[in-house]
Amino acid sequence: MEHLEQPIVTFELSNEFVERLQLAIEQRDEEFIQGAFIGVPPSDITEILYEFNTEDSKYVLDLLNIEVAAEILVDLDEDERTKFLKTFQPEEMAIYIEQLDSDDAADVLSELDTRTREEVIAAITKPEKAKNIEDLLRYEEDVAGGLMAKELIKANVNWTIKQCIEEIRRQKENVEKIYSIYVVDNNDILLGRLPLKRLILSDDDAHVADIYEQGVVSVETYLPEEEVADIMQKYDLESVPVVNVKGKLSGRITIDDIVDVITEQAEEERQIMSGISEDVEEDDSIWMLTRARLPWLVIGMAGGLLGAQFIGLFEENISLVPAMAFFIPLITATGGNVGIQSSSIVVQTIASRSFISDTIWRRLLKVLTVAIVNGIALAAIVFGSNLLLGEELRLALVVATALFSVVLLASFMGTVTPILLDKAGINPALASGPFITTANDLLGLAVYFSIAHVLYNF
Amino acid sequence: MEHLEQPIVTFELSNEFVERLQLAIEQRDEEFIQGAFIGVPPSDITEILYEFNTEDSKYVLDLLNIEVAAEILVDLDEDERTKFLKTFQPEEMAIYIEQLDSDDAADVLSELDTRTREEVIAAITKPEKAKNIEDLLRYEEDVAGGLMAKELIKANVNWTIKQCIEEIRRQKENVEKIYSIYVVDNNDILLGRLPLKRLILSDDDAHVADIYEQGVVSVETYLPEEEVADIMQKYDLESVPVVNVKGKLSGRITIDDIVDVITEQAEEERQIMSGISEDVEEDDSIWMLTRARLPWLVIGMAGGLLGAQFIGLFEENISLVPAMAFFIPLITATGGNVGIQSSSIVVQTIASRSFISDTIWRRLLKVLTVAIVNGIALAAIVFGSNLLLGEELRLALVVATALFSVVLLASFMGTVTPILLDKAGINPALASGPFITTANDLLGLAVYFSIAHVLYNF
Repeated sequence: MEHLEQPIVTFELSNEFVERLQLAIEQRDEEFIQGAFIGVPPSDITEILYEFNTEDSKYVLDLLNIEVAAEILVDLDEDERTKFLKTFQPEEMAIYIEQLDSDDAADVLSELDTRTREEVIAAITKPEKAKNIEDLLRYEEDVAGGLMAKELIKANVNWTIKQCIEEIRRQKENVEKIYSIYVVDNNDILLGRLPLKRLILSDDDAHVADIYEQGVVSVETYLPEEEVADIMQKYDLESVPVVNVKGKLSGRITIDDIVDVITEQAEEERQIMSGISEDVEEDDSIWMLTRARLPWLVIGMAGGLLGAQFIGLFEENISLVPAMAFFIPLITATGGNVGIQSSSIVVQTIASRSFISDTIWRRLLKVLTVAIVNGIALAAIVFGSNLLLGEELRLALVVATALFSVVLLASFMGTVTPILLDKAGINPALASGPFITTANDLLGLAVYFSIAHVLYNF
Repeated sequence: MEHLEQPIVTFELSNEFVERLQLAIEQRDEEFIQGAFIGVPPSDITEILYEFNTEDSKYVLDLLNIEVAAEILVDLDEDERTKFLKTFQPEEMAIYIEQLDSDDAADVLSELDTRTREEVIAAITKPEKAKNIEDLLRYEEDVAGGLMAKELIKANVNWTIKQCIEEIRRQKENVEKIYSIYVVDNNDILLGRLPLKRLILSDDDAHVADIYEQGVVSVETYLPEEEVADIMQKYDLESVPVVNVKGKLSGRITIDDIVDVITEQAEEERQIMSGISEDVEEDDSIWMLTRARLPWLVIGMAGGLLGAQFIGLFEENISLVPAMAFFIPLITATGGNVGIQSSSIVVQTIASRSFISDTIWRRLLKVLTVAIVNGIALAAIVFGSNLLLGEELRLALVVATALFSVVLLASFMGTVTPILLDKAGINPALASGPFITTANDLLGLAVYFSIAHVLYNF
């Protein structure tokens, strides 16, 4: 698709404009609506459409140029798109799909039920497009094959520059953005790439074989998307060719898709850390929001009930020394904070995939040293404060000792848990989530009351 | 800098290779070292150098091609680079700096003390390079001006395609990657862009004025980096031109720098959420790690001490009904979990900068509804469990009522806090951090004991 003309100043969405547009929609004022969107980039129109109901949005979409409308369809978030597509006939959907790059088309189609999907593909009039899309639908969404687009410029190593330029001309409608030309042999095996800069500066009758860059970073179709993101980030690539197991050029991934992967990863991590079990947003339904939140809250509460049972074992002691109960929140909160800090630092190491040559033992030794330093500082502060506040010496000693032990224990747990989760193929950010925090709470209580038990000599 | 040749398969770092290289460094085996790195991308060499001390790394760096060595210098993390640069003379540093794009050069120089920086700039032999770097050093690091590079291909609107190609030839050593040619008028005011694809498909004697895309998304030098990231992400741009307040073309920002901004934002958010106050990594010193962690732990502990004082007000009641103490962790943990969930959802809305047309009151109403649903479910579970576990009816009632109230209160706080923080220009993720969690703990305790006080009719 050709790059659309865009205004110098990016579009500002105002309430006045939304209201004016609403009026135009009610009055079926086609002229105003079409005029209002001239030169407005599709992603800005998408934002505006969120302000209207599906029916009104569909009315606006039908008035727009099909290229723009198709881009908007891709831009919408999945929930909105699903609502939209329900209003479409398969033939109508096929017209939109034909406008899209194969990767976007496959993404949209994969959201449909199998029957509708087959009907839409059957209604596509360009056989090459249909074949490309069917190819892509075979891949999982979260591997290189599921991210790539089939649209690219490919040149045989035996071609001349003139032939390359002809190929670009032939494909100019299909390939929106060209970063490099991929060079292949007669069997489509990827050999290297020809940057556009080099192509522009070469004579028309120069041979690709003489000027292309041999060797190029590529990824295989089955590579997980996180690893594709790492590779593109590490080598500062704006696009990467995708090859199948035999080295045959299958497609290319562009950086905009990878930016989305990185953003989604960050969102997913935030949700895991906050104990939200599904991908929810503020404007999802109350039912969705509850379903995403309640399971973790129930787990946390089950932990709280277990904690209550455990403290119950010390009922007599508490009734004798009620002050023991005062410090329960201090112990559990500090344990929680230390645990989250520790796991967060490990999660970061894992996320940045730094090659840490230290053995696990040396890492733990370091964590322990930091914990001892922090633990001594905190214990000293709490001990001093308690004496100043007039608490009993023995109680001050119990709290300080318990706090020190909890800091050590929580540091250890916070460090080991994400490492183990990662080894087990589970997202290590879970270690900063409520499940582990609850476990840490229980551990902290156990340490506190055990130490109290010993020092009070019950 | 020309794009370097890279192998098809990305480099795998093995312990054997590191050991073999260590041996070669000790034996000063130049031939082996140079041979080992032929065709290895600079970012892979950077990773390997982390395995050696600064002196050994410097030895390796000196053996490499200066272009590769300069890229490695930029690739290193700041702490390592600082160690490295201490071993350099200003003149030596200038040789490296000349190899770099102006944005990378300015970043490296901004890490030096003013005197060394001046000496290095004075030692740069290309006056244009020195001027570009000095220009960039004027900008804050976190605005568009601080991210942009001066290297770009600029064409006057009155030129022909032939003249554009001549300009590309003239600049081919300076501008590594070309995505578009920026079109300006006689006063250097940005008018639009000419995609390379269109340039390739046009005749040599065609005029830029007839074929360029008028209007293009651009950013102003003072725009904060997060907003640059949003714009490039929204419009799927691989590069964006930067203009000054008068609309004069000043530089361009490429997507690889924006990917770094996005990654850093995610890391910063994780650190804020986990209560870590500086940008630390697992391999930082024990002193750094303690300094980053202790302040938040002390704040959390101060909250805990306050909580202890508060619970102390109810000492007599606890000694009469020790079971009241059992449920302290349950109340504080649930309050904490609900608060973090709520703030996380709001933080996500803010981060994705979705245009939410709902008023703050409607958003709060929805949050409240979700909280009531969750609160009733949790209160029912805890009430039932407590009766089953044989707790007194009155206590079960107190705990259930307190839990319900805490869920409501924590939802409200968790929603309002990030919105207020954001309005005050503070990172809203702080609302999921330990400061707010501690405040929530205190609030939960107050609710719990107040309700107990009323229901027990003390």
